[in-house]
Amino acid sequence: MSQGQKETITISLDAMGGDNAPVNETAGAVETIKESAGISVILVGDSAKIETELKKFSYDNSRIRVHHASEVITMEDSAADAFRKKPDSSMVSGLKLHKSGEADGFISAGNTGAVMAASLFTLGRIVNVSRPTIGSKFPTEKGITMVLDVGANVDCKPINLLQFAVMGSVFVNYIYGIDNPTVGLLSVGEEKSKGDLLTTEAYELLEKSNLNFIGNVEGRDILKGSTNVIVCDGFTGNVVLKFAEGVLTLLKSKFSEFADSGFINKLKVGMAYGTLKTILKDFDYQEYGGVPLLGVNGISIIGHGRSSPLAIKNMILRAVQMARAGINDEIAKRIKDIKEFAT
Amino acid sequence: MSQGQKETITISLDAMGGDNAPVNETAGAVETIKESAGISVILVGDSAKIETELKKFSYDNSRIRVHHASEVITMEDSAADAFRKKPDSSMVSGLKLHKSGEADGFISAGNTGAVMAASLFTLGRIVNVSRPTIGSKFPTEKGITMVLDVGANVDCKPINLLQFAVMGSVFVNYIYGIDNPTVGLLSVGEEKSKGDLLTTEAYELLEKSNLNFIGNVEGRDILKGSTNVIVCDGFTGNVVLKFAEGVLTLLKSKFSEFADSGFINKLKVGMAYGTLKTILKDFDYQEYGGVPLLGVNGISIIGHGRSSPLAIKNMILRAVQMARAGINDEIAKRIKDIKEFAT
Repeated sequence: MSQGQKETITISLDAMGGDNAPVNETAGAVETIKESAGISVILVGDSAKIETELKKFSYDNSRIRVHHASEVITMEDSAADAFRKKPDSSMVSGLKLHKSGEADGFISAGNTGAVMAASLFTLGRIVNVSRPTIGSKFPTEKGITMVLDVGANVDCKPINLLQFAVMGSVFVNYIYGIDNPTVGLLSVGEEKSKGDLLTTEAYELLEKSNLNFIGNVEGRDILKGSTNVIVCDGFTGNVVLKFAEGVLTLLKSKFSEFADSGFINKLKVGMAYGTLKTILKDFDYQEYGGVPLLGVNGISIIGHGRSSPLAIKNMILRAVQMARAGINDEIAKRIKDIKEFAT
Repeated sequence: MSQGQKETITISLDAMGGDNAPVNETAGAVETIKESAGISVILVGDSAKIETELKKFSYDNSRIRVHHASEVITMEDSAADAFRKKPDSSMVSGLKLHKSGEADGFISAGNTGAVMAASLFTLGRIVNVSRPTIGSKFPTEKGITMVLDVGANVDCKPINLLQFAVMGSVFVNYIYGIDNPTVGLLSVGEEKSKGDLLTTEAYELLEKSNLNFIGNVEGRDILKGSTNVIVCDGFTGNVVLKFAEGVLTLLKSKFSEFADSGFINKLKVGMAYGTLKTILKDFDYQEYGGVPLLGVNGISIIGHGRSSPLAIKNMILRAVQMARAGINDEIAKRIKDIKEFAT
């Protein structure tokens, strides 16, 4: 799937995925091609609706085309079998365009579980990868920290965590340019002996690997940014990711409550809030633009249902970057290297 | 262990536990008896050091006494066997005073794992409780939310989660006065089918129980405060608790970075920071004063190593409240009621 040699990278975009589809998807695609050369986009979905949106913009129409798909996978559809029940959905059609080589990557802001299942079914896995994973970047004091898995695999075996560590290391290396990224194992204490059955066994595998493994890290270390890749089972990772999303909401609610308690407080909050917003830009998922599904034999990026045009743009750019970097070739190579550990 | 009838409640305090022991412990004890009637404190530890601290205050010396213990369990001691290796430690001696009935409750800001192990060993479990648990209150938009387990049990069975729910419900009912508290199961989605092997089985037990079970909740729900008791395995709970502790540190760091970026920004931060501090009071663990170890046959409250005199005072007050409420009698009764579920 490496496309390092191609001049133009084409991304197929599930235009019916997000809560505000196809409005934000279309706007994000147009914004992307206006700002960046060497990219073209296939908007997949209800062609009439998409064309209506496209008419609002002037753009180079050789770089955006519409691929009609009659069905839409919604948040209500079962993640596990939506792709079978709706084969002509924008999601499945978009993935097929990638599988066939017409597109070099795929993005969707639709039903997360369905994107994972449909991607795995359509694209297959990279050889020797037992479980694909989704990883998310977290806001930190300083530095890059990516946590994986954040929800693709709720029940994990030690070998899965080792593979997440490999895939995360390659991603952080290729996408953020970090050489020999540090890898931590999320646990309840720094000592090797601390942890549950899964992590104490995973520790052994990580220790034997050629990764830059620094040992156990704790919940608070996620926000420090001193560890580039932090691995955990997808249950724990998902709980922490959603907790982190809740922090901004809580802060806003507390600020508003304080403001309501008096005029002077209202003024104070008015001043503080702007500062807080600037400072908390790192907490804004729109800036990251989706999480990559690593380990599938292709490029699939999953966005938040509320993805703005900015988030869609950042997702497209990330998919392009992954395609150009040939990240999956490196993952395949590195996963093969650790095959001896596989149980 | 119900002490509802006693006029004065006596708390034994591990005076050598915290990072700044016995300074904060002594100051906290003196502050408590000055402010609140009906409480006496036994300061357990190096009597010479404690007496030196006590001399700094004037107080009613009939209400504070010193019980000498020659050893100290430190953060470096192994949690699992420190209580065996140091039987004359302030921690173990303090617990023995409680076990013998000389004290009605025990508190410590020492090595968390050691306090748990020593409490379980010295006090034993409430009949039918398979695993004692520690629960922590979280800051919320509105309302009381207690998460348990936050670290006592990293590997759990479904029955453990059910028992945590019972103990948490009794605690929230007796201590925060919430009738029929709502109980949520921490998972990765709201639907019953979402979760890992542990939670999907625990769901069945919780559903059959007579608790006010509202189903699965997600990471972000912890901060909403709409669910009074949230249960999870101690691995996940511990990761989230430490992540939450890290949020304040991160915010402080981001504010300081922003302030360093220019004079006007420094002024803005100066104003915003005060407001933020007021608003984030709920994030300050000193206000809560420790987490209760529920399910042991006695009262044991564990504080942060950095506990201030205020935190120590709040821990003493909490232990007194638990003793007066007779919380363990109710836990014993409610755990017996669900015995039919035990596997």
